[in-house]
Amino acid sequence: MALTSSDLLAVVLAQKQDVSALFDELRAGSRDGDGVTRDTYGPGEQFGHRVIEGRARAMGLEVRRDHASNLFMTLPGSDRSAPSLMTGSHIDSVGNGGNFDGAAGIIAGLVAIRALQQLGLKTKCDVTTAGIRAEESVWFQVSYIGSRSAFGVLPARSLEARRVDTGRTLAEHMAECGANVDEVRAGKASLDARSIRAWVEVHIEQAPQLVEAGLPMAIGTGVPGNFRYPQMKITGEYAHVGLPRRFRHDAVLAASEFALGLDEIWKRNDASGRPMAFTIGRFHTDPKEHALTKVAGEFNLSLDVRSYNKAHLAELENAVLALAKEVGERRGVRFDLGARASADVAPSHPEVFAKLTDAAKTLGIPSMPLASPASHDTATFTVAGVPSAMLFVRNANGSHNPREAMEIDDFLQAASVLTHFVATESAA
Amino acid sequence: MALTSSDLLAVVLAQKQDVSALFDELRAGSRDGDGVTRDTYGPGEQFGHRVIEGRARAMGLEVRRDHASNLFMTLPGSDRSAPSLMTGSHIDSVGNGGNFDGAAGIIAGLVAIRALQQLGLKTKCDVTTAGIRAEESVWFQVSYIGSRSAFGVLPARSLEARRVDTGRTLAEHMAECGANVDEVRAGKASLDARSIRAWVEVHIEQAPQLVEAGLPMAIGTGVPGNFRYPQMKITGEYAHVGLPRRFRHDAVLAASEFALGLDEIWKRNDASGRPMAFTIGRFHTDPKEHALTKVAGEFNLSLDVRSYNKAHLAELENAVLALAKEVGERRGVRFDLGARASADVAPSHPEVFAKLTDAAKTLGIPSMPLASPASHDTATFTVAGVPSAMLFVRNANGSHNPREAMEIDDFLQAASVLTHFVATESAA
Repeated sequence: MALTSSDLLAVVLAQKQDVSALFDELRAGSRDGDGVTRDTYGPGEQFGHRVIEGRARAMGLEVRRDHASNLFMTLPGSDRSAPSLMTGSHIDSVGNGGNFDGAAGIIAGLVAIRALQQLGLKTKCDVTTAGIRAEESVWFQVSYIGSRSAFGVLPARSLEARRVDTGRTLAEHMAECGANVDEVRAGKASLDARSIRAWVEVHIEQAPQLVEAGLPMAIGTGVPGNFRYPQMKITGEYAHVGLPRRFRHDAVLAASEFALGLDEIWKRNDASGRPMAFTIGRFHTDPKEHALTKVAGEFNLSLDVRSYNKAHLAELENAVLALAKEVGERRGVRFDLGARASADVAPSHPEVFAKLTDAAKTLGIPSMPLASPASHDTATFTVAGVPSAMLFVRNANGSHNPREAMEIDDFLQAASVLTHFVATESAA
Repeated sequence: MALTSSDLLAVVLAQKQDVSALFDELRAGSRDGDGVTRDTYGPGEQFGHRVIEGRARAMGLEVRRDHASNLFMTLPGSDRSAPSLMTGSHIDSVGNGGNFDGAAGIIAGLVAIRALQQLGLKTKCDVTTAGIRAEESVWFQVSYIGSRSAFGVLPARSLEARRVDTGRTLAEHMAECGANVDEVRAGKASLDARSIRAWVEVHIEQAPQLVEAGLPMAIGTGVPGNFRYPQMKITGEYAHVGLPRRFRHDAVLAASEFALGLDEIWKRNDASGRPMAFTIGRFHTDPKEHALTKVAGEFNLSLDVRSYNKAHLAELENAVLALAKEVGERRGVRFDLGARASADVAPSHPEVFAKLTDAAKTLGIPSMPLASPASHDTATFTVAGVPSAMLFVRNANGSHNPREAMEIDDFLQAASVLTHFVATESAA
């Protein structure tokens, strides 16, 4: 039976009311002020998992939980041993965040599977939608907890990280949510890259680039790698307001010069079309030393720098270190970099990217290629060796805030592209 | 009897051991780590007052305390109704500060009076050394509490200011130290500018300009006026790390641009020989919002700008406001200035300045004119209408820290100039 674009679009778009109701159900049960809070390995995420699992069971899917309590919802194929097609995203959210960040990707996966069911397609391989745990690093300050546990690559020491609000360890929180902490610690894997044919994650865009471009969706070209200095420190000299300029070693001015120097680097990279970003989330004098008439002698900041290309990242890191050295010498202050963390770049798989692009064209859905400025579980799949890519849905007001604004119609366009890819690939 | 320079220097320099012992006694009783703490209207300042008062009584001076518990130690003149000569400084210190900041000015006054006594000079007018209360604004965030109370110009609302460490009000602290709070509140004055012929304050320099110049002392040309914005706020937009540069309204970068813009203004003023200073004591993102991957949407800072000339101050304030506007527009952020405070400029009285300069020349003590970058009680005397000036003593390592380093020999040079001035003027 030949699958026509109009048949496919019909069964996806027909799910509009159903999809809206499911988003509303998630929102209602995790409402927190204007936004939602689905706390990682806590009551909020648990609630989301119950709703999604209930929906999967109602659809007749096979439901499995792994040792990290990740949720896998599978439409079995005719050959259970064939490498599967996998899609999905995370269920957790930041505190007082938006309802669509994460949830959209899981619901898109369920929409695609429902479409396959309604079209009566016989799939050859398994098609699985995953509800990944603990993607939002704001809670434990650890990235990709759920997806890295699934591939057995979460460092054991991460289990001792404490949740910023409860002060309790990841191990405690995981155990309460039904995970087998010993298996996580031992590096057990529930996923094997060789048994996954492709991974595609749908996610809301976290910037207004699609709004700017007037397009409903985009096809991801990759997830950035990063290097991070979460605890940088600048030491100058505390001094009395009476100290003339030429004697000062003002940590505030050194920090300001460093921040603006980074901004200049970004500006130059932007101008030459080399995507990157740097973010300073923490930038402050020492509250214990605050006085109106005291020159600041110490300064603290965090730095996150990201890019899509390993060589580019290395080049940026050299530029950052050179800038710190230059400002340190000019201002007579010392830069202590502190601990360093990093993540590999995760470019989309060219073949998956091309097939998604073709699917959008076939369906007549306008899209564009888009580098993801943010991190996603897709990076873990890519680094593990699974051919992966992402689909982004237009969203006006950024993410991680209650004003996040995705139109269900845009969402269904992305879900249609996903469905087309899954239908075509699972039939092969 | 003609007073010779050598007689005068002899009786001042002979007090070296005695002066060292008195500084040591003050240090020993208020030691705090490497430095001293003589907390404003608290046990540390009280201790200092007991030591100084004891010394004044042993010298046979008249001792008086006013309604704010300021201490006045007087060598009576032959005409008690003649306008007096007054010198002195404050006894309090910042937390873990230096031993000489404040104390040097009071001890210099006692050295001068002791010299008059030993020279057997008959003074016509009273010569008074004042131990002023509460000069260090770090404790109550209020300037010149003691000297303004003495002139009856401390705003009544200041009595409700709370000490940053104890959380208790100035009124409570003052009452415990023997002050009459009702009289302070009512604006009673214990000093009348018309009955003070001149005020001279000796103080350690709070910058290494005399070290740089190779001179033991300087004659102050004036105390700066200032304008202050203690609670400035910048509002941009919090955003996810995924937001590209062109969409960001990063409060950290706006604050950095503002700080460096101020530094440029200072640099230009320095280059054209127009003394000024700006100080940012507080400069920080909101700790409640700190996350490694969050663009900062709010920023807080304090600003103190000072200069020696009213028109220059007004020009600087216009430049600061224009800079805030310009950065605000360029970065798409809002600057809220918050409360504004200011203090008048307090130029030295030309005649007192000239007489101190002559005294140094007569004694063969090398000196230079020096604008005080810091604030001092002398400003209150100047603004009240008392002909005033200051003497600064070389000091290597700044002030408000335990490494403050004044040589007693340098101190005695300044005390000699003070003694010469007082001896000459009180005989007239």
